[in-house]
Amino acid sequence: MMPTPPPACRELARILRDGSRFLMLPHVHIDGDDLGSMVGLAAALDRLGKESYLYSPDQVPEVFRWLPGSERLQDQMPRGPFDAVILMECPSEGRLPPGIRPRELGRLVVNFDHHLGNTMSADVHWVEPERAALGEMAVLLVDSLGVPLDREIATALYVALVTDSGNFQYRQVSAETHRIAARLVEQIGDVSEICRLLFRDRPVAELALTGRVMQTLRTSADGRVAWAELDSGMLQATGAREEDAQNLVADVNRVRGTQVFALFKHLTSDQVRVSLRSTGPDVNRVAALFGGGGHRLAAGLTLAGPDLEEARHRVLEALKRQMAEEEAASGT
Amino acid sequence: MMPTPPPACRELARILRDGSRFLMLPHVHIDGDDLGSMVGLAAALDRLGKESYLYSPDQVPEVFRWLPGSERLQDQMPRGPFDAVILMECPSEGRLPPGIRPRELGRLVVNFDHHLGNTMSADVHWVEPERAALGEMAVLLVDSLGVPLDREIATALYVALVTDSGNFQYRQVSAETHRIAARLVEQIGDVSEICRLLFRDRPVAELALTGRVMQTLRTSADGRVAWAELDSGMLQATGAREEDAQNLVADVNRVRGTQVFALFKHLTSDQVRVSLRSTGPDVNRVAALFGGGGHRLAAGLTLAGPDLEEARHRVLEALKRQMAEEEAASGT
Repeated sequence: MMPTPPPACRELARILRDGSRFLMLPHVHIDGDDLGSMVGLAAALDRLGKESYLYSPDQVPEVFRWLPGSERLQDQMPRGPFDAVILMECPSEGRLPPGIRPRELGRLVVNFDHHLGNTMSADVHWVEPERAALGEMAVLLVDSLGVPLDREIATALYVALVTDSGNFQYRQVSAETHRIAARLVEQIGDVSEICRLLFRDRPVAELALTGRVMQTLRTSADGRVAWAELDSGMLQATGAREEDAQNLVADVNRVRGTQVFALFKHLTSDQVRVSLRSTGPDVNRVAALFGGGGHRLAAGLTLAGPDLEEARHRVLEALKRQMAEEEAASGT
Repeated sequence: MMPTPPPACRELARILRDGSRFLMLPHVHIDGDDLGSMVGLAAALDRLGKESYLYSPDQVPEVFRWLPGSERLQDQMPRGPFDAVILMECPSEGRLPPGIRPRELGRLVVNFDHHLGNTMSADVHWVEPERAALGEMAVLLVDSLGVPLDREIATALYVALVTDSGNFQYRQVSAETHRIAARLVEQIGDVSEICRLLFRDRPVAELALTGRVMQTLRTSADGRVAWAELDSGMLQATGAREEDAQNLVADVNRVRGTQVFALFKHLTSDQVRVSLRSTGPDVNRVAALFGGGGHRLAAGLTLAGPDLEEARHRVLEALKRQMAEEEAASGT
């Protein structure tokens, strides 16, 4: 039993039923949630005889290329006008593909997202920040369109759901996430191959690189901070490319008992880039001290200069100060 | 909506309602599915005022020690007799804890399992091989007992469900797996901390060891076989213990495009132990050539002698022959 769809969902469904040509736009650096939601929604619109176009300047990431329908993504802007332009997971202008002005492309602009603090200007807003993935909302939208789920639609929306929910492991996963997953799995059947392609299988060079970085893992601040390093020598030694480092943070940030993880990337001689992840302390404040930014639990910064050791010292000290301040403030 | 429980579930529920003292026994090398199912079922029996005892000669694995109720596991056999002895996931006598004769411990022996080919002798059999986890069945049993799920019961059964289903990634995961998960998550709320403890967080020495082994990854047989090596020098270099290598196979068996993975463990000077994993070819047949055994997709063997290179050569050649034979047989 699915709950009644929210009014914004029904409004978006009405727009899609009334129009005939639609454009969907993902955020920059397209990910599994926008890609899967776009592909699944486009398949549902096919069933209704509607035209839909999927534009992104980014290529489909390799890990998703097996997904039927992902080849519909085009890097040439199709000719408008469109009855509606649907922005997928674009909480602010800066997240749009470069040079895109949605209002010039279609009669209506739809803001379709699950991010907190979405400030995008649009005609129709369907934003639910408590959702684990846009894919959850896309399932409700397909329901509201009156299109039955089938294997093709379900596979795309399952990709969306599992990638953005961290395979059902993240904070926003709810009972409804699993109820929606049940409906998708009902159509798909055996999901083990999909999960293997998405979460496990990696090029051997990427695994070798991950292994090297894992070996640099150290802890500081009484074991509450873990950090690791990546340098250009490791890329050379393993034959990995910089793109192979995309999953590194998630694969290496696994030290038991830590609250904060820092990855120091020293890939060019003039700067050190630092990725911060947290399960509590506000790493966005630490990133901001160095001119970086992000969110409370995930942020990044860049330090000029070639000295990795100094960069590490400065960032680790700032992390310790932040944690000490938060502890003092909470009275622990 | 949950389906009507099967007759064997209702029979087991009747036995539990009619009796007052129960013993639960897991298989050797207790895992998350039997531990979580035992703890969850014991909590449900508490609600009915029944006594239940959880015996295992194995300690609770470290990764599950945070689970409330796991401290009920005792390594001294409690004094009988019991109204029923429930065997959790013991498909054959060899899987029972050593020296245990269930029939001498209680009036009735119950065979409660989800493994294919279960041949255990018992008075009552509830065996459903198509289930992703015993935890799925335990939820139905708690329902049949008329005990409402609460946070304590749900947490234990969630641990059972997610560990044996590979966090919803394995072949046997079904729509019902997710419908059951939805009911558990409804009680638990935020599962992110549980998932972190179960699937991500590892001691730093274990991660360093994993990193070393990852760097030994190579492929053979046109990229269809991946293999890696672990030797005692790696344990020394990382400060890891042999127990830290438990998750190694799963963490390293991730090379894209491969069908078979082999881990060669050279930890003592007189033998090489080999773990085999497959997504298709029958590695049990290969293990059997060397006196080893297991299942079609997961098997192991031990080679006497100190020569790692020779062991690798012999096993890789046998894997290639097996794959060639299967291809010839299937006409591809």
